[in-house]
Amino acid sequence: MLAQIDHVGVAVEDMDAALSLYTGPLEMPLQYRETVEEQGVDAALVGIGAGHVELLSPLGPETPVGKYLERRGPGLHHVAYAVDDIDAVLEQLRAAGLRLIDDTPRVGIRNSRVAFLHPGPLGGVLTEIVEPAEEH
Amino acid sequence: MLAQIDHVGVAVEDMDAALSLYTGPLEMPLQYRETVEEQGVDAALVGIGAGHVELLSPLGPETPVGKYLERRGPGLHHVAYAVDDIDAVLEQLRAAGLRLIDDTPRVGIRNSRVAFLHPGPLGGVLTEIVEPAEEH
Repeated sequence: MLAQIDHVGVAVEDMDAALSLYTGPLEMPLQYRETVEEQGVDAALVGIGAGHVELLSPLGPETPVGKYLERRGPGLHHVAYAVDDIDAVLEQLRAAGLRLIDDTPRVGIRNSRVAFLHPGPLGGVLTEIVEPAEEH
Repeated sequence: MLAQIDHVGVAVEDMDAALSLYTGPLEMPLQYRETVEEQGVDAALVGIGAGHVELLSPLGPETPVGKYLERRGPGLHHVAYAVDDIDAVLEQLRAAGLRLIDDTPRVGIRNSRVAFLHPGPLGGVLTEIVEPAEEH
């Protein structure tokens, strides 16, 4: 059902510093960067094998990632699993009793279709399901 | 240098409940389970694509994962990247100014060779480097 780890999301306080770290010593190439006003976040994907690290910097303190940084500090924010058919997987997870934050998929970074699951029934792990856009 | 995301580590309070969740609704097969007394942890690997989720349950409150649970609650604990040559990668990361928790690789779960990097210079992300054992 879940095909592979697509990415880990990392909440960062300083995107420039984070990009210097990941594209420098960690040698992960910058693949994509996008400001997602609707989510209140500046997001950058750096590549690692077939997956990514998604760096997330808040556009303001009242955004979800801004509140996360205030509460938890910088660090691992979520894990995302790639799927082939997000609609089918969401329906299956809902039927299994998991709680969806997004009842239906929304457009994520780089035209993927994504949905988040509530961390409560998942042992505190904010979990994202991603159906990548076909060109990727 | 870093080949792929090998696994995410998840700190759990109840291993049985976590295994029920991951092998049940999330459909990740249990691949391996080991009690690592030296690390004070009960560890289980569940499979996702070519990677894993590593579930970590502390053997007591004074262990590293026990203290982590006390301080942060259950959830994402670390991310691990697979490498071909852990000695060379550690030397390269040390030369780049990153701080190693393990100066030399130690034996990890399932006879891998592993080393942890200090989260401080890594934006709060506890990061592990893994050279899998050859049979895997």
